[in-house]
Amino acid sequence: MQDLTRLSRELNYEFKQESLLKTALTHRSASSNNNERLEFLGDSVLGQVISIELYLHFPEASEGELSRMRSSLVRGDTLAIVARELNLGDYLNLGSGELKSGGFRRDSILADAFEAIIGAVYLDSDQQTTHKFVLHFLGQRLEKCDPNSVLKDPKTRLQEFLQADSEPLPEYHVVAIEGQAHAQTFEVECHINRLDETIKGIGSSRRKAEQAAAQQVLEKLGL
Amino acid sequence: MQDLTRLSRELNYEFKQESLLKTALTHRSASSNNNERLEFLGDSVLGQVISIELYLHFPEASEGELSRMRSSLVRGDTLAIVARELNLGDYLNLGSGELKSGGFRRDSILADAFEAIIGAVYLDSDQQTTHKFVLHFLGQRLEKCDPNSVLKDPKTRLQEFLQADSEPLPEYHVVAIEGQAHAQTFEVECHINRLDETIKGIGSSRRKAEQAAAQQVLEKLGL
Repeated sequence: MQDLTRLSRELNYEFKQESLLKTALTHRSASSNNNERLEFLGDSVLGQVISIELYLHFPEASEGELSRMRSSLVRGDTLAIVARELNLGDYLNLGSGELKSGGFRRDSILADAFEAIIGAVYLDSDQQTTHKFVLHFLGQRLEKCDPNSVLKDPKTRLQEFLQADSEPLPEYHVVAIEGQAHAQTFEVECHINRLDETIKGIGSSRRKAEQAAAQQVLEKLGL
Repeated sequence: MQDLTRLSRELNYEFKQESLLKTALTHRSASSNNNERLEFLGDSVLGQVISIELYLHFPEASEGELSRMRSSLVRGDTLAIVARELNLGDYLNLGSGELKSGGFRRDSILADAFEAIIGAVYLDSDQQTTHKFVLHFLGQRLEKCDPNSVLKDPKTRLQEFLQADSEPLPEYHVVAIEGQAHAQTFEVECHINRLDETIKGIGSSRRKAEQAAAQQVLEKLGL
């Protein structure tokens, strides 16, 4: 783990209790005193900050539009981009297993660590400071959100399309799971009535594989 | 809608902007100026308050235990109980369709309205006041939570049981959907490799039907 002074500068926040930052950077593979509880806390603080800001910033947006904008801002992909901009990977404390598997590059570990840092900032300071901390990293992305252009996810779009035609809901089945516990690949089949063939999606989680399959079906349908 | 003075007393909070409370009590069936945006806001504030309190109150609980306790506290069933204790149903502004269908008794409408009230309190006051407001209604339930006795949901338990034996994940298929848009019944089949028969679950949402089916499978397996 590198010197945390540089990280503090990048975070634009200096911890009074540096031990909180250290815990936030510790993956469960490295220690039982890890960042999982802080991630739980940070995730909820992040959710509230983003929800409040979206509510105030988009007075005309519907609840559905607000929810989709929030999802796009707090999802792992987005937080991993922020974490990579901060070079968080250089500061993570990972077990040897994760190091060998190249796990420190993995988006979810980075995103989780960033959420844990939000939790740590909250415990180290107060609501208002944490609010500003979150906006420092996500405020610009939030302002650039467009309620109309945040696409629904593929599963939702497929479901709504079929419901509009009063057709049965799509069926998703996991047909294969490969790999070790923390690096699994899921293969999911999606079947809808109007297509004879079942269509496959692959992803690193069941959810992602289902979304991938739904996306393929949408494309097959020309949507 | 009844006089809001009594409700203010029951809520233990007096609104400076009574229009916020009125909006929080207005279902989408009654007006386009309804409580959906406030519900979005209140849901996230509720999530943060409960997360922080659980984090502080259960220093030994794991992230998984904290998540399960949070789910049990913020889920619709729990919030509907609180809403019924407040007789929120008496104050709701519902469209004639919802009134006729007896919709005003429905748990989800009550739970949503309670979340919207939390959002309204937040806009009318500040973080600290809202925090206390939430704890006034959920604090005792929170303190009574036991990290060890909050059972995982049936789908999770079934999945973990099968994974421990390296068996394929269960498959869930929706086999029937009956009823009108806002009062549907879902029928879901659950299939696992080690049982020849498929087992059915019924519920008011796909998720609930899947949980019901998983519960039946667990019982079949003697778990």
